[in-house]
Amino acid sequence: MTMPHDSRSPLAICTRFGIPIAVGLLVWFLPSPAEVSTDAWHLLAIFVATIIAIVLEPLPMGAVAVCGIAVVTLTRTLSLNDTLSGFSHPVIWLVVMAFFISRGIIKTGLGARIAYTFMRLLGRRTIGLGYSMIATDLVLAPAIPSITARAGAVIYPIVKSVAQAFGSRPTDGTERHIGAYLILNSFYGVLVTSAMFLTAMAANPLSVQMAADAGIEITWGRWALAALVPGLASLIIVPFALYRLFPPTIKDTPRAPEMAAKRLAEMGPLERGEKVMIATFALLLLLWIFGRQLHVHSAVAALVGLTILLLTRVLTWEDILKERAAWDTFIWLSTLVMMATYLSKLGLVGWFSGEMSGLFAGVGWMPAFLSLALIYFYCHYFFAGNTAHISSMYAAFLAVALAVGTPPLLAALVLAFFSNLFSSMTHYGTGPAPVYYGAGYVRLKDWWRIGFVVSLINIVIWLGIGGLWWKAIGVW
Amino acid sequence: MTMPHDSRSPLAICTRFGIPIAVGLLVWFLPSPAEVSTDAWHLLAIFVATIIAIVLEPLPMGAVAVCGIAVVTLTRTLSLNDTLSGFSHPVIWLVVMAFFISRGIIKTGLGARIAYTFMRLLGRRTIGLGYSMIATDLVLAPAIPSITARAGAVIYPIVKSVAQAFGSRPTDGTERHIGAYLILNSFYGVLVTSAMFLTAMAANPLSVQMAADAGIEITWGRWALAALVPGLASLIIVPFALYRLFPPTIKDTPRAPEMAAKRLAEMGPLERGEKVMIATFALLLLLWIFGRQLHVHSAVAALVGLTILLLTRVLTWEDILKERAAWDTFIWLSTLVMMATYLSKLGLVGWFSGEMSGLFAGVGWMPAFLSLALIYFYCHYFFAGNTAHISSMYAAFLAVALAVGTPPLLAALVLAFFSNLFSSMTHYGTGPAPVYYGAGYVRLKDWWRIGFVVSLINIVIWLGIGGLWWKAIGVW
Repeated sequence: MTMPHDSRSPLAICTRFGIPIAVGLLVWFLPSPAEVSTDAWHLLAIFVATIIAIVLEPLPMGAVAVCGIAVVTLTRTLSLNDTLSGFSHPVIWLVVMAFFISRGIIKTGLGARIAYTFMRLLGRRTIGLGYSMIATDLVLAPAIPSITARAGAVIYPIVKSVAQAFGSRPTDGTERHIGAYLILNSFYGVLVTSAMFLTAMAANPLSVQMAADAGIEITWGRWALAALVPGLASLIIVPFALYRLFPPTIKDTPRAPEMAAKRLAEMGPLERGEKVMIATFALLLLLWIFGRQLHVHSAVAALVGLTILLLTRVLTWEDILKERAAWDTFIWLSTLVMMATYLSKLGLVGWFSGEMSGLFAGVGWMPAFLSLALIYFYCHYFFAGNTAHISSMYAAFLAVALAVGTPPLLAALVLAFFSNLFSSMTHYGTGPAPVYYGAGYVRLKDWWRIGFVVSLINIVIWLGIGGLWWKAIGVW
Repeated sequence: MTMPHDSRSPLAICTRFGIPIAVGLLVWFLPSPAEVSTDAWHLLAIFVATIIAIVLEPLPMGAVAVCGIAVVTLTRTLSLNDTLSGFSHPVIWLVVMAFFISRGIIKTGLGARIAYTFMRLLGRRTIGLGYSMIATDLVLAPAIPSITARAGAVIYPIVKSVAQAFGSRPTDGTERHIGAYLILNSFYGVLVTSAMFLTAMAANPLSVQMAADAGIEITWGRWALAALVPGLASLIIVPFALYRLFPPTIKDTPRAPEMAAKRLAEMGPLERGEKVMIATFALLLLLWIFGRQLHVHSAVAALVGLTILLLTRVLTWEDILKERAAWDTFIWLSTLVMMATYLSKLGLVGWFSGEMSGLFAGVGWMPAFLSLALIYFYCHYFFAGNTAHISSMYAAFLAVALAVGTPPLLAALVLAFFSNLFSSMTHYGTGPAPVYYGAGYVRLKDWWRIGFVVSLINIVIWLGIGGLWWKAIGVW
């Protein structure tokens, strides 16, 4: 299902446009099951075509979303008001505003300062350097929903400059000195941190919304609490395992803390913008964590944070308008949330799970849900990105999981966490993967091999340690 | 009420922040009238503060809107869902998509080609040159809702290059040769064309929505039909009147058609992008004009147009994402539409009109509405931009007009048209005014004097010829 991004021959373009349209038409004209309304079936056809187009990418995801909306309204499958309803969804604005806020972290240089601070503290050995990147990522994750920005704009430049400072360059035989380890370590780190917070990955709200459509409420705080223990376990264990599986040849890096100290000295004391950013970040975290008790919705909290940054001019309005990734996310996420919501509202998800749950008749929920979760996880080999995968499979798998008796919140959370962790296996499975892989430090064979082992480690940690933790906090 | 845009002294900044906050707090804590709920009154306080902030501009309009939303939700004046509802409003998406589509007109060079084509046809005399710019503007207006883009990006550069070609430069005594005439003529033209189509000015949807809140439906086609005759009359009469009032010293421009022909020759034959743009534009106009009969909402039509431009790659997704003016409009327009809608829903507009209509007791609706409309029009001396004026006064004036017995559609349309025409009087009253005035061809005294005369001419044309036309087509 994944096609290389650079094939732009006329035939390839026709295929990319033709397949989604053909499949969409096929589903459209198939006789719909008796229990499913025509509108619901037509929406399914448009949805399937949209998802295939997101995978084949005849146009960027946002443009595909616009075409999808156009077809939905033109065919009167949904009313115009229903079609546009996604654009006023609180969970989408939560993420869009977090995008804007994250610009402040990058713009003020606070992200780099945090990274160098951890590096000065922990960077005496290569493994410590790895942990310093992970720690930076963890601190930033709650307010940077673009993993491409977090991994690409903050962490990747530092990883690269450290590797080069230690004479580890791509494709000249020095890759394994230190660069390859730091690259893979940061890549696996960002997947775990993005699983830890609702606002740490742009498509997490899709999972939350699909869970909400199934009657399961996942607040910002509930997500973070559930992910806390398995997340920290992964962040501690994976870098260590990687150190054993794929050891760097340089193990001691005494010069690294000096480098970091020098950079920090160049930066000078905290500037006004950074101070405002830290205060805003702290307030945001408080409001997000205690939102339930304070009766402040997470989107309102983000709105307050954004307002502070605008009033203090840490962010200008021009910064907001040119934050293309936010507008991009806004369009595709709203479209997919809208489609998913109406597939559920029109009864399609319920019908599908009814049909499927027969397959698991007589099996306890535990083995049934385990199978579902693993199938969900490893299907990611077929997806170039989290969004298409979550959009096409999350709601259906959750519905079947509920039908076989899985505790609802457990099922919703596990699938949501897996929707981040499943990207370790390939070099195209999520936004930062092509960037890190493209750096040239890790050979494809190693990338896939180690990525698979890491996927197993993560699954064991999250279902094992996570399972116990979730029992303790009453998730199931 | 208008403050210069460049005063950035600490005192000025404090004033700009302080006044809206102080007035907002004052209204908030005033005892609300018995008939008005506390929530409605609080929303009024936030609305008043927002409008004052839009006028004083402590931050750009979009940032002010974000602050306004934050206060609305934080104070629980409206629920989060209600607050975000503006973002899924069809009429807003109509304008946002028209912004995207208009990028295609500018990007493909079609706008310039149309201008040079008219110039070759009509440009033998100065007055003909003036009409050629007006004709260009009229053709482009339905699909370019940013008057700043239409006037600034398409027409202004041509006006300027023509003026310079005829040796008319700012502030060296040659202004009046031809430049001053062309500048004022194009400026007055863009105000009339923006009054002629719902999609010809970014804030027109505000009027439409406020009319809808009062139970008056204004579709794209109905607006265009009602504006057709008075609009064409203004476009014909005003340039001629200006030619008498403020004559250019160069009256014959035989070289202009040659210049235009040369530019057209340089452009070569119509390119693919331009052809697609023309076809899309034609389809859009058809769908907009016959939308009612075809049961296609104007926003769906715009969505179809945008989809065609994306599929044919006339517009790339990147073009959409970097169209900052569209995202800017999206935020402030959604916010203001939301606030206006809830002021009406919560009964505040009704209460206000009930209080006010007593003033007109015993007066017939004609003199009453004429007074209202003129007060509405000339209040524009106090506003730097259409949006603040429409937001703060349209709904209230419409409600009073209805209360005194004015035919509803007539009242809604006249105020909506006036919301464009009222900008002729000052050099700060609408987006393109500072650009055209800043070109330096027209002295301030002349700008205000002639602008006032033109305002009278427009009012007579629209209420006189327009009044008869509206009677003929059944508006009243």
